[in-house]
Amino acid sequence: MEIGYLNGSFIPKEQISISPDDRGFLFGDGIYEVVRWYEGFFFDMEGHHSRLKRSLRELRITWSRADLFPSIALELIKQNKLENQSAMVYFQLTRGAAPRTHSFPSPEVKPTIYAYAWSFTPDTASKQSGIKVMLKEDIRWSRCDIKSVSLLANTISFHEASVNGLKECIFVRNGSITEGSHSNIFFVIDGTLFTHPESNWVLSGITRKNVLRIAQQAGINIREETLPENRIRFAQEAFITNTSAEVTPVIDIGGNSIGAGIPGPVTKLISAKFDSEINALRR
Amino acid sequence: MEIGYLNGSFIPKEQISISPDDRGFLFGDGIYEVVRWYEGFFFDMEGHHSRLKRSLRELRITWSRADLFPSIALELIKQNKLENQSAMVYFQLTRGAAPRTHSFPSPEVKPTIYAYAWSFTPDTASKQSGIKVMLKEDIRWSRCDIKSVSLLANTISFHEASVNGLKECIFVRNGSITEGSHSNIFFVIDGTLFTHPESNWVLSGITRKNVLRIAQQAGINIREETLPENRIRFAQEAFITNTSAEVTPVIDIGGNSIGAGIPGPVTKLISAKFDSEINALRR
Repeated sequence: MEIGYLNGSFIPKEQISISPDDRGFLFGDGIYEVVRWYEGFFFDMEGHHSRLKRSLRELRITWSRADLFPSIALELIKQNKLENQSAMVYFQLTRGAAPRTHSFPSPEVKPTIYAYAWSFTPDTASKQSGIKVMLKEDIRWSRCDIKSVSLLANTISFHEASVNGLKECIFVRNGSITEGSHSNIFFVIDGTLFTHPESNWVLSGITRKNVLRIAQQAGINIREETLPENRIRFAQEAFITNTSAEVTPVIDIGGNSIGAGIPGPVTKLISAKFDSEINALRR
Repeated sequence: MEIGYLNGSFIPKEQISISPDDRGFLFGDGIYEVVRWYEGFFFDMEGHHSRLKRSLRELRITWSRADLFPSIALELIKQNKLENQSAMVYFQLTRGAAPRTHSFPSPEVKPTIYAYAWSFTPDTASKQSGIKVMLKEDIRWSRCDIKSVSLLANTISFHEASVNGLKECIFVRNGSITEGSHSNIFFVIDGTLFTHPESNWVLSGITRKNVLRIAQQAGINIREETLPENRIRFAQEAFITNTSAEVTPVIDIGGNSIGAGIPGPVTKLISAKFDSEINALRR
Protein backbone atom coordinates (compact mmCIF):
# COMPACT_ATOMS: atom_id res chain seq x y z
CA MET A 1 0.00 0.00 0.00
CA GLU A 2 1.31 3.42 -1.01
CA ILE A 3 2.07 5.61 1.99
CA GLY A 4 1.92 9.38 1.72
CA TYR A 5 2.50 12.20 4.17
CA LEU A 6 0.07 14.89 5.22
CA ASN A 7 0.59 17.43 7.99
CA GLY A 8 2.61 15.26 10.32
CA SER A 9 1.12 11.86 9.55
CA PHE A 10 2.23 8.99 7.36
CA ILE A 11 -0.98 7.47 6.02
CA PRO A 12 -2.19 5.49 3.00
CA LYS A 13 -2.04 7.90 0.06
CA GLU A 14 -5.59 7.01 -0.96
CA GLN A 15 -6.79 8.37 2.39
CA ILE A 16 -5.15 11.75 1.84
CA SER A 17 -7.48 14.55 0.90
CA ILE A 18 -7.15 18.30 0.64
CA SER A 19 -9.61 20.94 1.74
CA PRO A 20 -11.25 22.84 -1.14
CA ASP A 21 -10.32 25.95 0.86
CA ASP A 22 -6.65 25.09 0.52
CA ARG A 23 -4.79 27.98 -1.06
CA GLY A 24 -2.86 25.49 -3.14
CA PHE A 25 -6.12 24.52 -4.83
CA LEU A 26 -7.69 28.00 -4.99
CA PHE A 27 -4.64 30.14 -5.86
CA GLY A 28 -1.65 27.92 -6.65
CA ASP A 29 -0.28 29.51 -3.48
CA GLY A 30 2.42 27.03 -2.53
CA ILE A 31 5.82 25.62 -3.36
CA TYR A 32 7.29 22.20 -4.09
CA GLU A 33 10.46 20.17 -4.38
CA VAL A 34 11.27 16.85 -6.02
CA VAL A 35 14.23 14.95 -4.58
CA ARG A 36 15.85 11.89 -6.04
CA TRP A 37 16.76 8.75 -4.17
CA TYR A 38 19.59 6.70 -5.68
CA GLU A 39 19.14 3.25 -4.13
CA GLY A 40 20.46 4.36 -0.76
CA PHE A 41 20.83 8.15 -0.60
CA PHE A 42 19.27 11.41 -1.68
CA PHE A 43 21.44 13.38 -4.09
CA ASP A 44 22.16 16.89 -2.83
CA MET A 45 19.39 16.91 -0.26
CA GLU A 46 21.11 19.97 1.17
CA GLY A 47 20.62 21.84 -2.12
CA HIS A 48 16.94 20.96 -2.28
CA HIS A 49 16.46 21.73 1.39
CA SER A 50 17.95 25.19 1.16
CA ARG A 51 15.98 25.96 -2.01
CA LEU A 52 12.78 24.87 -0.25
CA LYS A 53 13.53 27.27 2.60
CA ARG A 54 14.30 30.06 0.14
CA SER A 55 10.97 29.49 -1.69
CA LEU A 56 9.12 29.71 1.63
CA ARG A 57 10.94 32.91 2.58
CA GLU A 58 10.21 34.53 -0.78
CA LEU A 59 6.48 33.77 -0.43
CA ARG A 60 6.45 34.49 3.30
CA ILE A 61 5.00 31.07 4.09
CA THR A 62 5.90 29.99 7.60
CA TRP A 63 6.80 26.39 8.25
CA SER A 64 8.41 26.32 11.65
CA ARG A 65 9.57 22.73 11.14
CA ALA A 66 11.29 23.17 7.78
CA ASP A 67 14.17 21.23 9.34
CA LEU A 68 12.00 18.10 9.05
CA PHE A 69 12.07 18.04 5.24
CA PRO A 70 14.94 15.50 4.89
CA SER A 71 13.56 13.16 7.53
CA ILE A 72 10.05 13.19 6.04
CA ALA A 73 11.52 12.31 2.65
CA LEU A 74 13.59 9.50 4.12
CA GLU A 75 10.66 8.11 6.08
CA LEU A 76 8.57 7.98 2.88
CA ILE A 77 11.32 5.97 1.20
CA LYS A 78 11.38 3.55 4.12
CA GLN A 79 7.63 3.20 4.59
CA ASN A 80 7.20 2.52 0.87
CA LYS A 81 10.08 0.01 0.88
CA LEU A 82 11.95 1.95 -1.79
CA GLU A 83 15.38 1.84 -0.08
CA ASN A 84 16.94 -0.34 -2.73
CA GLN A 85 15.31 1.25 -5.72
CA SER A 86 15.64 4.39 -7.75
CA ALA A 87 12.89 6.64 -6.40
CA MET A 88 11.56 10.17 -6.17
CA VAL A 89 9.95 12.12 -3.36
CA TYR A 90 7.51 14.91 -4.23
CA PHE A 91 7.01 17.48 -1.52
CA GLN A 92 4.48 20.32 -1.61
CA LEU A 93 3.78 22.99 0.93
CA THR A 94 0.95 25.50 0.61
CA ARG A 95 -0.10 28.54 2.64
CA GLY A 96 -2.89 26.40 4.12
CA ALA A 97 -6.68 26.35 4.13
CA ALA A 98 -8.61 29.54 4.85
CA PRO A 99 -11.67 31.43 3.58
CA ARG A 100 -10.85 32.64 0.07
CA THR A 101 -9.26 36.12 -0.10
CA HIS A 102 -6.42 37.23 -2.34
CA SER A 103 -4.51 38.54 0.68
CA PHE A 104 -2.83 36.03 2.94
CA PRO A 105 -4.89 34.70 5.87
CA SER A 106 -4.62 36.86 8.96
CA PRO A 107 -3.83 35.52 11.43
CA GLU A 108 -1.65 32.99 9.63
CA VAL A 109 -3.00 29.46 9.32
CA LYS A 110 -1.02 26.25 9.41
CA PRO A 111 0.58 25.40 6.07
CA THR A 112 -0.52 22.25 4.28
CA ILE A 113 2.38 19.82 3.95
CA TYR A 114 1.96 16.98 1.52
CA ALA A 115 4.46 14.46 0.20
CA TYR A 116 4.65 11.11 -1.49
CA ALA A 117 7.29 8.85 -3.00
CA TRP A 118 7.39 6.60 -6.02
CA SER A 119 9.66 4.12 -7.72
CA PHE A 120 11.36 5.93 -10.57
CA THR A 121 12.62 4.50 -13.85
CA PRO A 122 15.19 6.82 -15.46
CA ASP A 123 14.79 7.57 -19.16
CA THR A 124 18.14 6.08 -20.15
CA ALA A 125 17.31 6.11 -23.86
CA SER A 126 16.95 9.89 -23.81
CA LYS A 127 20.09 10.27 -21.73
CA GLN A 128 22.08 8.25 -24.23
CA SER A 129 20.63 9.31 -27.58
CA GLY A 130 19.47 12.80 -26.75
CA ILE A 131 16.10 14.48 -27.16
CA LYS A 132 14.36 16.82 -29.55
CA VAL A 133 12.76 19.90 -28.06
CA MET A 134 10.58 22.78 -29.17
CA LEU A 135 11.13 26.52 -28.77
CA LYS A 136 8.29 28.67 -27.53
CA GLU A 137 7.72 32.16 -26.21
CA ASP A 138 8.18 32.24 -22.42
CA ILE A 139 4.70 33.11 -21.13
CA ARG A 140 5.49 32.53 -17.46
CA TRP A 141 5.49 35.11 -14.68
CA SER A 142 8.50 37.15 -13.58
CA ARG A 143 9.42 35.07 -10.55
CA CYS A 144 10.55 31.84 -12.18
CA ASP A 145 13.18 31.61 -9.43
CA ILE A 146 10.46 30.55 -6.99
CA LYS A 147 9.55 26.86 -7.28
CA SER A 148 5.83 27.53 -6.95
CA VAL A 149 2.88 25.31 -7.84
CA SER A 150 1.28 28.03 -9.99
CA LEU A 151 2.53 26.05 -12.96
CA LEU A 152 -0.17 26.49 -15.58
CA ALA A 153 2.17 28.25 -18.02
CA ASN A 154 4.66 25.39 -17.68
CA THR A 155 2.04 22.69 -18.17
CA ILE A 156 0.38 24.16 -21.25
CA SER A 157 3.77 24.87 -22.81
CA PHE A 158 5.13 21.40 -22.10
CA HIS A 159 1.92 19.80 -23.26
CA GLU A 160 2.30 21.48 -26.63
CA ALA A 161 5.80 20.00 -26.96
CA SER A 162 4.56 16.63 -25.81
CA VAL A 163 1.71 16.32 -28.34
CA ASN A 164 4.28 17.13 -31.03
CA GLY A 165 6.45 14.22 -29.90
CA LEU A 166 9.06 16.51 -28.32
CA LYS A 167 10.57 15.94 -24.89
CA GLU A 168 10.81 19.51 -23.59
CA CYS A 169 9.69 23.02 -24.34
CA ILE A 170 12.51 25.58 -24.21
CA PHE A 171 11.46 29.14 -23.51
CA VAL A 172 12.51 32.32 -25.31
CA ARG A 173 11.93 35.64 -23.56
CA ASN A 174 12.71 38.93 -25.28
CA GLY A 175 14.68 37.04 -27.89
CA SER A 176 16.88 35.09 -25.46
CA ILE A 177 16.79 31.52 -24.18
CA THR A 178 15.78 31.24 -20.53
CA GLU A 179 15.22 27.57 -19.63
CA GLY A 180 12.87 24.64 -20.20
CA SER A 181 9.37 24.13 -18.80
CA HIS A 182 10.89 21.93 -16.09
CA SER A 183 14.62 21.92 -16.78
CA ASN A 184 17.58 24.25 -17.27
CA ILE A 185 19.34 24.32 -20.61
CA PHE A 186 23.04 24.56 -21.50
CA PHE A 187 24.75 25.20 -24.83
CA VAL A 188 28.30 24.48 -25.94
CA ILE A 189 29.71 26.99 -28.42
CA ASP A 190 33.34 26.56 -29.46
CA GLY A 191 34.13 24.74 -26.24
CA THR A 192 32.50 27.27 -23.93
CA LEU A 193 29.51 26.25 -21.81
CA PHE A 194 26.63 28.75 -21.81
CA THR A 195 23.60 28.85 -19.54
CA HIS A 196 21.26 31.58 -18.35
CA PRO A 197 22.58 33.29 -15.21
CA GLU A 198 20.69 32.95 -11.94
CA SER A 199 17.92 35.53 -11.98
CA ASN A 200 14.18 35.92 -11.62
CA TRP A 201 13.76 34.45 -15.14
CA VAL A 202 14.98 30.94 -14.35
CA LEU A 203 14.82 28.39 -11.59
CA SER A 204 18.12 27.84 -9.90
CA GLY A 205 18.21 24.11 -10.63
CA ILE A 206 20.03 21.81 -8.23
CA THR A 207 21.39 19.77 -11.13
CA ARG A 208 22.30 23.03 -12.90
CA LYS A 209 24.44 24.05 -9.92
CA ASN A 210 26.14 20.68 -9.72
CA VAL A 211 26.80 20.67 -13.46
CA LEU A 212 28.39 24.11 -13.26
CA ARG A 213 30.61 22.90 -10.43
CA ILE A 214 31.56 19.75 -12.34
CA ALA A 215 32.29 21.74 -15.51
CA GLN A 216 34.45 24.15 -13.59
CA GLN A 217 36.38 21.30 -11.96
CA ALA A 218 36.89 19.84 -15.44
CA GLY A 219 38.43 23.11 -16.60
CA ILE A 220 35.61 23.93 -19.02
CA ASN A 221 35.14 27.61 -19.80
CA ILE A 222 31.76 28.74 -18.43
CA ARG A 223 29.68 31.76 -19.29
CA GLU A 224 26.52 32.30 -17.30
CA GLU A 225 24.83 34.76 -19.61
CA THR A 226 21.70 35.10 -21.71
CA LEU A 227 21.97 33.51 -25.12
CA PRO A 228 20.04 35.20 -27.93
CA GLU A 229 17.83 32.75 -29.81
CA ASN A 230 19.63 33.53 -33.07
CA ARG A 231 22.90 32.24 -31.59
CA ILE A 232 21.52 28.72 -31.15
CA ARG A 233 22.70 27.96 -34.68
CA PHE A 234 26.30 28.42 -33.54
CA ALA A 235 25.93 25.78 -30.82
CA GLN A 236 27.72 22.49 -31.39
CA GLU A 237 26.01 20.91 -28.38
CA ALA A 238 23.12 21.44 -26.00
CA PHE A 239 21.73 19.63 -22.99
CA ILE A 240 19.06 20.01 -20.36
CA THR A 241 19.37 19.31 -16.65
CA ASN A 242 16.94 18.49 -13.90
CA THR A 243 16.57 16.00 -11.08
CA SER A 244 15.06 13.27 -13.23
CA ALA A 245 16.81 13.95 -16.57
CA GLU A 246 20.21 14.58 -14.87
CA VAL A 247 22.28 15.58 -17.93
CA THR A 248 20.26 14.79 -21.06
CA PRO A 249 21.62 15.79 -24.49
CA VAL A 250 19.48 17.94 -26.79
CA ILE A 251 20.06 17.02 -30.44
CA ASP A 252 17.38 19.11 -32.12
CA ILE A 253 15.75 22.41 -31.25
CA GLY A 254 12.66 23.49 -33.14
CA GLY A 255 13.46 21.23 -36.07
CA ASN A 256 17.11 22.28 -36.36
CA SER A 257 19.84 19.79 -35.53
CA ILE A 258 22.33 20.83 -32.90
CA GLY A 259 25.86 20.13 -34.16
CA ALA A 260 25.96 16.71 -35.79
CA GLY A 261 22.55 15.83 -34.31
CA ILE A 262 24.12 13.45 -31.80
CA PRO A 263 25.31 14.00 -28.22
CA GLY A 264 28.58 15.90 -28.28
CA PRO A 265 31.85 15.40 -26.38
CA VAL A 266 31.45 18.14 -23.77
CA THR A 267 27.93 16.93 -22.93
CA LYS A 268 29.17 13.36 -22.67
CA LEU A 269 32.09 14.39 -20.48
CA ILE A 270 29.88 16.31 -18.05
CA SER A 271 27.27 13.55 -18.03
CA ALA A 272 29.94 10.93 -17.31
CA LYS A 273 31.39 13.00 -14.49
CA PHE A 274 27.91 13.51 -13.03
CA ASP A 275 27.28 9.76 -13.16
CA SER A 276 30.68 9.11 -11.55
CA GLU A 277 29.80 11.35 -8.64
CA ILE A 278 26.57 9.44 -8.11
CA ASN A 279 28.37 6.12 -8.32
CA ALA A 280 31.03 7.28 -5.88
CA LEU A 281 28.25 8.08 -3.39
CA ARG A 282 26.84 4.57 -3.73
CA ARG A 283 29.80 3.11 -1.87
CA MET B 1 -25.50 24.01 7.12
CA GLU B 2 -23.44 25.32 4.21
CA ILE B 3 -24.04 23.34 1.03
CA GLY B 4 -21.36 23.14 -1.63
CA TYR B 5 -21.16 21.42 -4.99
CA LEU B 6 -18.66 18.80 -6.12
CA ASN B 7 -18.77 16.83 -9.34
CA GLY B 8 -22.53 16.58 -9.67
CA SER B 9 -23.52 16.47 -6.01
CA PHE B 10 -24.80 19.10 -3.61
CA ILE B 11 -23.34 18.17 -0.24
CA PRO B 12 -22.36 19.84 3.03
CA LYS B 13 -19.30 21.94 2.23
CA GLU B 14 -17.43 20.49 5.20
CA GLN B 15 -17.68 17.06 3.56
CA ILE B 16 -16.07 18.25 0.34
CA SER B 17 -12.50 17.23 -0.20
CA ILE B 18 -10.10 17.30 -3.10
CA SER B 19 -7.65 14.64 -4.18
CA PRO B 20 -3.99 15.60 -3.66
CA ASP B 21 -3.54 14.42 -7.27
CA ASP B 22 -5.90 17.13 -8.47
CA ARG B 23 -4.17 19.27 -11.05
CA GLY B 24 -5.71 22.31 -9.43
CA PHE B 25 -3.68 21.55 -6.31
CA LEU B 26 -0.49 20.36 -8.05
CA PHE B 27 -0.28 22.81 -10.97
CA GLY B 28 -2.91 25.55 -10.60
CA ASP B 29 -4.30 23.90 -13.72
CA GLY B 30 -7.87 25.13 -13.66
CA ILE B 31 -10.18 28.09 -14.11
CA TYR B 32 -12.80 29.88 -12.04
CA GLU B 33 -15.67 32.34 -12.10
CA VAL B 34 -17.39 34.39 -9.41
CA VAL B 35 -20.99 35.38 -10.10
CA ARG B 36 -23.08 37.80 -8.11
CA TRP B 37 -26.61 37.26 -6.93
CA TYR B 38 -28.68 40.42 -6.33
CA GLU B 39 -31.51 39.25 -4.08
CA GLY B 40 -33.30 37.46 -6.89
CA PHE B 41 -31.11 37.27 -10.00
CA PHE B 42 -27.56 36.79 -11.22
CA PHE B 43 -26.16 39.83 -12.96
CA ASP B 44 -24.94 39.03 -16.48
CA MET B 45 -24.81 35.28 -15.97
CA GLU B 46 -24.51 35.05 -19.73
CA GLY B 47 -21.28 37.06 -19.67
CA HIS B 48 -19.78 34.86 -16.94
CA HIS B 49 -20.98 31.71 -18.65
CA SER B 50 -19.42 32.58 -22.00
CA ARG B 51 -16.15 33.62 -20.33
CA LEU B 52 -16.10 30.31 -18.44
CA LYS B 53 -16.48 28.43 -21.71
CA ARG B 54 -13.75 30.54 -23.31
CA SER B 55 -11.34 29.83 -20.42
CA LEU B 56 -11.99 26.10 -20.82
CA ARG B 57 -11.39 26.28 -24.57
CA GLU B 58 -8.15 28.21 -24.14
CA LEU B 59 -6.84 25.60 -21.70
CA ARG B 60 -8.34 22.68 -23.62
CA ILE B 61 -10.20 21.46 -20.56
CA THR B 62 -13.27 19.48 -21.55
CA TRP B 63 -16.45 19.87 -19.55
CA SER B 64 -19.20 18.36 -21.64
CA ARG B 65 -21.88 19.81 -19.36
CA ALA B 66 -20.71 23.42 -19.36
CA ASP B 67 -24.36 24.27 -20.03
CA LEU B 68 -25.06 23.36 -16.38
CA PHE B 69 -23.10 26.29 -14.93
CA PRO B 70 -26.10 28.64 -14.44
CA SER B 71 -28.30 25.95 -12.93
CA ILE B 72 -25.60 24.79 -10.49
CA ALA B 73 -25.12 28.39 -9.35
CA LEU B 74 -28.86 28.87 -8.90
CA GLU B 75 -29.23 25.61 -7.00
CA LEU B 76 -26.47 26.68 -4.58
CA ILE B 77 -28.35 29.91 -3.92
CA LYS B 78 -31.52 27.96 -3.21
CA GLN B 79 -30.00 25.20 -1.11
CA ASN B 80 -28.21 27.79 1.02
CA LYS B 81 -31.39 29.87 1.35
CA LEU B 82 -29.71 32.93 -0.10
CA GLU B 83 -32.54 33.88 -2.51
CA ASN B 84 -33.38 37.08 -0.71
CA GLN B 85 -29.86 38.15 0.09
CA SER B 86 -26.91 39.62 -1.69
CA ALA B 87 -24.69 36.63 -2.42
CA MET B 88 -21.81 35.26 -4.46
CA VAL B 89 -21.17 31.94 -6.11
CA TYR B 90 -17.59 30.77 -6.59
CA PHE B 91 -17.11 28.16 -9.29
CA GLN B 92 -13.85 26.35 -10.03
CA LEU B 93 -13.09 23.74 -12.64
CA THR B 94 -9.75 21.94 -12.89
CA ARG B 95 -8.31 19.47 -15.36
CA GLY B 96 -8.99 16.72 -12.81
CA ALA B 97 -6.99 14.26 -10.74
CA ALA B 98 -4.27 12.19 -12.38
CA PRO B 99 -0.70 11.00 -11.69
CA ARG B 100 1.53 14.08 -11.75
CA THR B 101 3.00 14.93 -15.16
CA HIS B 102 3.39 18.38 -16.70
CA SER B 103 1.60 17.22 -19.85
CA PHE B 104 -2.16 16.82 -19.70
CA PRO B 105 -3.47 13.39 -18.66
CA SER B 106 -3.86 11.05 -21.60
CA PRO B 107 -6.51 9.79 -21.93
CA GLU B 108 -8.35 12.79 -20.52
CA VAL B 109 -9.74 12.47 -17.01
CA LYS B 110 -12.94 13.96 -15.68
CA PRO B 111 -12.56 17.59 -14.65
CA THR B 112 -13.05 18.50 -11.01
CA ILE B 113 -16.02 20.82 -10.61
CA TYR B 114 -16.33 22.63 -7.32
CA ALA B 115 -18.61 25.48 -6.27
CA TYR B 116 -19.97 27.17 -3.20
CA ALA B 117 -22.07 30.22 -2.34
CA TRP B 118 -21.97 32.76 0.43
CA SER B 119 -23.89 35.73 1.72
CA PHE B 120 -22.09 38.85 0.50
CA THR B 121 -21.93 42.27 2.13
CA PRO B 122 -20.96 44.95 -0.40
CA ASP B 123 -18.28 47.43 0.62
CA THR B 124 -20.52 50.47 0.32
CA ALA B 125 -18.08 52.74 2.16
CA SER B 126 -15.45 52.14 -0.54
CA LYS B 127 -18.02 52.57 -3.29
CA GLN B 128 -19.05 55.93 -1.90
CA SER B 129 -15.79 57.41 -0.68
CA GLY B 130 -13.34 55.73 -2.99
CA ILE B 131 -10.21 53.72 -2.30
CA LYS B 132 -6.48 54.19 -2.23
CA VAL B 133 -4.40 51.76 -4.27
CA MET B 134 -0.77 50.94 -4.86
CA LEU B 135 1.16 50.67 -8.12
CA LYS B 136 3.42 47.70 -8.69
CA GLU B 137 5.29 46.03 -11.52
CA ASP B 138 3.06 43.46 -13.24
CA ILE B 139 4.80 40.16 -12.52
CA ARG B 140 2.03 37.93 -13.87
CA TRP B 141 2.22 35.61 -16.86
CA SER B 142 1.35 36.55 -20.44
CA ARG B 143 -2.13 35.04 -20.50
CA CYS B 144 -3.97 37.28 -18.05
CA ASP B 145 -7.01 36.93 -20.32
CA ILE B 146 -7.53 33.40 -18.95
CA LYS B 147 -9.28 33.36 -15.58
CA SER B 148 -7.02 30.64 -14.20
CA VAL B 149 -6.41 29.60 -10.61
CA SER B 150 -2.61 29.96 -11.02
CA LEU B 151 -2.98 33.19 -9.07
CA LEU B 152 0.16 33.38 -6.97
CA ALA B 153 1.36 36.58 -8.64
CA ASN B 154 -2.02 38.17 -7.95
CA THR B 155 -2.11 37.08 -4.31
CA ILE B 156 1.40 38.22 -3.38
CA SER B 157 0.87 41.54 -5.14
CA PHE B 158 -2.51 42.18 -3.54
CA HIS B 159 -1.20 41.11 -0.15
CA GLU B 160 1.50 43.77 -0.35
CA ALA B 161 -1.17 46.40 -1.01
CA SER B 162 -3.31 45.02 1.78
CA VAL B 163 -0.63 45.13 4.48
CA ASN B 164 -0.04 48.75 3.49
CA GLY B 165 -3.71 49.53 4.12
CA LEU B 166 -4.48 49.84 0.40
CA LYS B 167 -7.49 48.28 -1.28
CA GLU B 168 -6.01 47.14 -4.58
CA CYS B 169 -2.72 46.68 -6.36
CA ILE B 170 -2.63 48.19 -9.85
CA PHE B 171 -0.13 46.68 -12.25
CA VAL B 172 2.33 48.43 -14.54
CA ARG B 173 3.86 46.46 -17.39
CA ASN B 174 6.50 47.97 -19.65
CA GLY B 175 5.61 51.39 -18.30
CA SER B 176 1.87 51.15 -18.92
CA ILE B 177 -1.10 50.43 -16.66
CA THR B 178 -2.69 47.03 -17.27
CA GLU B 179 -5.26 46.31 -14.54
CA GLY B 180 -5.60 45.46 -10.85
CA SER B 181 -4.80 42.19 -9.09
CA HIS B 182 -8.49 41.31 -9.27
CA SER B 183 -10.13 44.25 -11.01
CA ASN B 184 -9.95 46.34 -14.17
CA ILE B 185 -9.06 50.00 -13.92
CA PHE B 186 -10.42 53.04 -15.76
CA PHE B 187 -9.15 56.62 -15.92
CA VAL B 188 -10.93 59.83 -16.87
CA ILE B 189 -8.74 62.41 -18.60
CA ASP B 190 -10.41 65.58 -19.84
CA GLY B 191 -13.75 63.82 -20.11
CA THR B 192 -12.46 60.78 -21.99
CA LEU B 193 -12.65 57.33 -20.40
CA PHE B 194 -9.47 55.26 -20.75
CA THR B 195 -9.01 51.57 -20.04
CA HIS B 196 -6.60 48.91 -21.28
CA PRO B 197 -7.87 47.23 -24.46
CA GLU B 198 -8.84 43.57 -24.41
CA SER B 199 -5.63 41.58 -24.87
CA ASN B 200 -3.56 38.86 -23.28
CA TRP B 201 -2.40 41.37 -20.64
CA VAL B 202 -5.78 41.87 -18.93
CA LEU B 203 -8.81 39.89 -17.95
CA SER B 204 -11.86 40.81 -19.93
CA GLY B 205 -13.93 41.73 -16.90
CA ILE B 206 -17.70 41.29 -17.03
CA THR B 207 -18.22 44.56 -15.13
CA ARG B 208 -15.62 46.19 -17.43
CA LYS B 209 -17.72 45.25 -20.47
CA ASN B 210 -20.93 46.48 -18.90
CA VAL B 211 -19.29 49.74 -17.84
CA LEU B 212 -18.02 50.33 -21.38
CA ARG B 213 -21.53 49.72 -22.71
CA ILE B 214 -23.06 52.07 -20.13
CA ALA B 215 -20.44 54.76 -20.84
CA GLN B 216 -21.08 54.51 -24.54
CA GLN B 217 -24.83 54.77 -24.04
CA ALA B 218 -24.19 57.85 -21.91
CA GLY B 219 -22.28 59.45 -24.77
CA ILE B 220 -18.93 59.38 -22.98
CA ASN B 221 -15.87 59.36 -25.21
CA ILE B 222 -14.05 56.02 -24.74
CA ARG B 223 -10.50 55.05 -25.59
CA GLU B 224 -9.52 51.45 -25.05
CA GLU B 225 -5.77 51.91 -25.14
CA THR B 226 -2.76 51.43 -22.93
CA LEU B 227 -2.11 54.32 -20.59
CA PRO B 228 1.55 55.06 -19.77
CA GLU B 229 2.15 55.27 -16.04
CA ASN B 230 3.43 58.83 -16.38
CA ARG B 231 0.04 59.94 -17.71
CA ILE B 232 -1.75 59.03 -14.48
CA ARG B 233 -0.98 62.52 -13.20
CA PHE B 234 -3.22 63.94 -15.92
CA ALA B 235 -6.21 61.87 -14.75
CA GLN B 236 -9.00 63.76 -13.00
CA GLU B 237 -10.71 60.51 -12.02
CA ALA B 238 -10.09 56.78 -11.77
CA PHE B 239 -12.13 53.77 -10.77
CA ILE B 240 -11.86 50.00 -10.61
CA THR B 241 -14.46 47.47 -11.64
CA ASN B 242 -15.16 43.87 -10.74
CA THR B 243 -18.08 41.72 -9.71
CA SER B 244 -17.89 42.61 -6.04
CA ALA B 245 -16.62 46.21 -6.24
CA GLU B 246 -18.94 47.07 -9.18
CA VAL B 247 -17.77 50.64 -9.90
CA THR B 248 -15.50 51.77 -7.05
CA PRO B 249 -13.75 55.16 -7.26
CA VAL B 250 -9.98 55.32 -6.87
CA ILE B 251 -8.93 58.53 -5.12
CA ASP B 252 -5.24 57.90 -4.61
CA ILE B 253 -2.68 55.90 -6.56
CA GLY B 254 0.70 55.23 -5.01
CA GLY B 255 0.35 58.17 -2.62
CA ASN B 256 -0.75 60.66 -5.28
CA SER B 257 -4.28 62.03 -5.18
CA ILE B 258 -6.37 61.56 -8.29
CA GLY B 259 -8.04 64.85 -9.18
CA ALA B 260 -9.43 66.44 -6.04
CA GLY B 261 -8.97 63.22 -4.08
CA ILE B 262 -12.70 62.51 -4.08
CA PRO B 263 -14.91 60.54 -6.47
CA GLY B 264 -15.41 62.55 -9.66
CA PRO B 265 -18.52 63.28 -11.75
CA VAL B 266 -17.91 60.79 -14.58
CA THR B 267 -17.27 57.99 -12.09
CA LYS B 268 -20.38 58.90 -10.15
CA LEU B 269 -22.46 59.03 -13.32
CA ILE B 270 -21.32 55.60 -14.48
CA SER B 271 -21.72 54.14 -11.01
CA ALA B 272 -25.24 55.54 -10.72
CA LYS B 273 -26.21 54.17 -14.13
CA PHE B 274 -24.78 50.78 -13.20
CA ASP B 275 -26.81 50.79 -9.97
CA SER B 276 -29.93 51.84 -11.90
CA GLU B 277 -29.55 48.87 -14.22
CA ILE B 278 -29.33 46.55 -11.25
CA ASN B 279 -32.35 48.15 -9.62
CA ALA B 280 -34.35 47.93 -12.84
CA LEU B 281 -33.66 44.19 -12.89
CA ARG B 282 -35.01 43.85 -9.36
CA ARG B 283 -38.55 44.48 -10.55
